[in-house]
Amino acid sequence: MAFGWIDEQAELRRRAGLVRTLRPRPAESPLLDLASNDYLGLARHPEVTEGAARAARTWGGGATGSRLVTGTTELHAELERELADFCGFEAALVFSSGYAANLAAVTALAPHGSLIVSDAGNHASLIDGCRLARGTTQVVAHSEPDAVRKALHTYDGPAVVVSDTVFSVDGDAAPLARFAEVCREHGAGLVVDDAHGLGVLGDGGRGAPHAAGLAGADDVVVTVTLSKSFGSQGGAVLGPARVIDHLVNAARTFIFDTGLAPAAAGAALAALRLLRREPERAARARMVASELHTRLTAAGLEAVRPDAAVVSVRAPSPEEAVLWAADCRAAGLAVGCFRPPSVPDGISRLRLTARADLSEGQIERAVRVIGETRP
Amino acid sequence: MAFGWIDEQAELRRRAGLVRTLRPRPAESPLLDLASNDYLGLARHPEVTEGAARAARTWGGGATGSRLVTGTTELHAELERELADFCGFEAALVFSSGYAANLAAVTALAPHGSLIVSDAGNHASLIDGCRLARGTTQVVAHSEPDAVRKALHTYDGPAVVVSDTVFSVDGDAAPLARFAEVCREHGAGLVVDDAHGLGVLGDGGRGAPHAAGLAGADDVVVTVTLSKSFGSQGGAVLGPARVIDHLVNAARTFIFDTGLAPAAAGAALAALRLLRREPERAARARMVASELHTRLTAAGLEAVRPDAAVVSVRAPSPEEAVLWAADCRAAGLAVGCFRPPSVPDGISRLRLTARADLSEGQIERAVRVIGETRP
Ligand SMILES: Cc1ncc(COP(=O)(O)O)c(C=O)c1O
Ligand SMILES: Cc1ncc(COP(=O)(O)O)c(C=O)c1O
Repeated sequence: MAFGWIDEQAELRRRAGLVRTLRPRPAESPLLDLASNDYLGLARHPEVTEGAARAARTWGGGATGSRLVTGTTELHAELERELADFCGFEAALVFSSGYAANLAAVTALAPHGSLIVSDAGNHASLIDGCRLARGTTQVVAHSEPDAVRKALHTYDGPAVVVSDTVFSVDGDAAPLARFAEVCREHGAGLVVDDAHGLGVLGDGGRGAPHAAGLAGADDVVVTVTLSKSFGSQGGAVLGPARVIDHLVNAARTFIFDTGLAPAAAGAALAALRLLRREPERAARARMVASELHTRLTAAGLEAVRPDAAVVSVRAPSPEEAVLWAADCRAAGLAVGCFRPPSVPDGISRLRLTARADLSEGQIERAVRVIGETRP
Repeated sequence: MAFGWIDEQAELRRRAGLVRTLRPRPAESPLLDLASNDYLGLARHPEVTEGAARAARTWGGGATGSRLVTGTTELHAELERELADFCGFEAALVFSSGYAANLAAVTALAPHGSLIVSDAGNHASLIDGCRLARGTTQVVAHSEPDAVRKALHTYDGPAVVVSDTVFSVDGDAAPLARFAEVCREHGAGLVVDDAHGLGVLGDGGRGAPHAAGLAGADDVVVTVTLSKSFGSQGGAVLGPARVIDHLVNAARTFIFDTGLAPAAAGAALAALRLLRREPERAARARMVASELHTRLTAAGLEAVRPDAAVVSVRAPSPEEAVLWAADCRAAGLAVGCFRPPSVPDGISRLRLTARADLSEGQIERAVRVIGETRP
C-alpha cells in the first residue's frame, strides 16, 4: 500500500515516546510564556498588530506574485531599506520566511565547485541550504575557528563559512570575529544566521554581526528572521548590494516564491521602528536571560550561561524532559522542550525565552515552577 | 576576494540581457493587472483584508514560534479543518509558504531507499523537494503517464509520483486521473501540487484533485498555496490523517519553521469562506481564461489553450519577450514575462492571469494592447 512504511515509523516513534502533537492555543492564554521566540514581547504590541492591519488594508491580503513579477510593493522596499540601515549593511532582501532566506543565501553563494564549511550546531534551514547547494559541504566542530581554518586549508576554490550567530538550542554565541578572521586569511565569505541575535545583541539590538564589528563588511552576509524579535513572519538577507543583486537573479526561494504578505512586512517594519525608538528593549532581554540563568543555577539546575535571550536547562532524558515541560505547563508556565531528533547532540533540555517584557515577579515565578517540577 | 565570482556571473547576465531587477509597485497602481496570481481577485477584497487585520489584532503580528511549540493557534487549527473539508481530504497542515509545503511533502514522503518519479515540468519547489529528499529521483517526460509507468516498473521499494496539477508556465493541466491509475498499479503514492488549481478547478474551486475524483483517496497527497486564489500567503498539505501526522513528526520545514502569521491565516480563511459562498468565482476565472485564449488566437497570436486560469503566449525570443512586456506596461497593462532560466524548455512567453474579476472591457483592452505591441 502507498505510504505503508509511515505506519511502521509511527509505531517506532510511539514506542520511543517521541510522538509530537499539535496543541492549538487560544488568543488569551493563561500561561506565562517562556516558550515562544517573541524576545522583545512585540508580537502583541498594538503598534505591531496595527502595522499588520494597516498594511493588509493598504496593500491587500497577499503580495499576489513572485517578488520579480507583482510581489514587490513599496512597503517591501521600505522594509528592506530600513532593515539594511538598522543593521549596518548596504542592502537587504526580504523573503517569506527565515527558512527561505537561509536556503537562498547558502545555495546562491555556494555554487558548483565551491566549498561550504558548516558549523555542526547549525539550524536545520542552513543544513538544508548546504544540502541543496551545488558546492561541497564540510561540517566542522561546533564554534571552533581552528576547525574552520583547517577545512579552508584543504581547499583552493571559492569558499563560504556558514554559522548561526546564536545557536537556538543552547543559546550560545558563535565566535564571529574569529570566524571572520579565519575567512579573511583564506578569502572566504562568511554567511551567518542572526535569527536569535537580531533585536537582542549589538547596539540597540542591531544584531551579533554589528556587535562583532562586521556590519557592512564586503565579505559578510547576514540572514535574519522577522518572526522572532520582530514579532512577525519572514526573513531577510543583508549584505553588499552586489550580493543582494546576485540573490535577486539566482536564489530559487526568492524567484519562485510569492513575496512576503504585506501584513507581515508591515508588522516587522513597525517592530523595527519601535525598537529604534526604544533600544533599551534589547538590553532588557539580555538582562532577563542573565537573571534567569543566575537564579536557575542558584536553585541547583544545570543551565547554560546565556549569550543572548535563550536559556537552556538540561534534562536527564527525553521522557523526563517531556514530563518536566508538562508539569511546568500544569503549573501555568509554558517552556520549550527540545529532544531528539531536534537536538544535534542528543541531549534533551528545557528551553526558556528571556522575553524583555517579563517582570521580576514573572521571572521569580518561572524559576520557582521549574525548580519545583524538576525530575 | 570573497564572492569575487559573483561579478563575473553578473557580467554574463548583463551580456545575455537576463538581468532581473525589482520594481516596487505603489498601493494603487494605474496598471491593469494580468500578471499576478490573484486568480479570484480576492487579495484586495475587504473581507480578506479585514480577515487579516482582525487576525493580527486578535492573535498578534506573528505566530511566535514553531508550530510544535507556540506557533499553533486555534486559528491555524480552524483553517486546517476548513481547508481539508473544502478540498475533501481527511486532514490538512498549514505551512508558512507553498514552497515550504512542497519541500515538506516531498522530503517526508520519499525517505532513503524510495523512488521519486518527478514530472519534467514541475515547479522549482517540488524540484528542490526532490533534491532534498533522501530518495532517488527519476525525472520523466512532461505529462506522460506511460513514462511514469515505465519508471515505476524499474523499482521495487516505496515510490511516489510528484507533479504539478496545473503547470505554472503554460497553464496546462496534468493527466491526474491517469497518474493515479498508474500509481495504483504499482502501490505508489501520488503527491500533487495544486497551487494553480485550488480556487479555479473542480466544483466551486475545490481544486484539480477533487475534479479528478481523487479527493480523500488514501494514496493521494495534495499541496496547495494560500498565496494565489486565496489572496494571502502560506501553503498547506492535504491528505490522510496518518500522512499529516507523519509530516508533523518528520517534515523539517514544518518542525523548524515559525508558524504562519495569524494575519495570513485569517486572510486565507476569509477567502475560503467567501469562495464557499460565491462558488461561481471559480467558473468565472476559467471563462475569462477561455475568452482571453479565443481572442488572442483570433488575433493571430500563439496562445496555449488554458486548462485553468493561466494563459501563455509565445514570444520569439527572450529579448523580444522582455520588450513586449515592457511595451504592454507602457500601454497600461501588466503581464508576466517568463524566460530562461525560469522556463524548463527555454521558450520565452508572456504569461497572463485570467482574474475572475476582469470585466469584458478589461479583457478586450488587454487583448488589444497585447496585439498592438506584438514583436
Ligand atoms: C537559527 C534559526 N534560523 C532560521 C530559522 C527559521 O526562521 P523562520 O522561522 O522565520 O522561517 C529559525 C527558527 O525558526 C532559527 O532558529
Ligand atoms: C506550482 C507552484 N507551486 C508552489 C509555489 C510556491 O508557493 P508559494 O509562493 O505560496 O510559496 C508556486 C509559486 O509561487 C507555484 O507556482
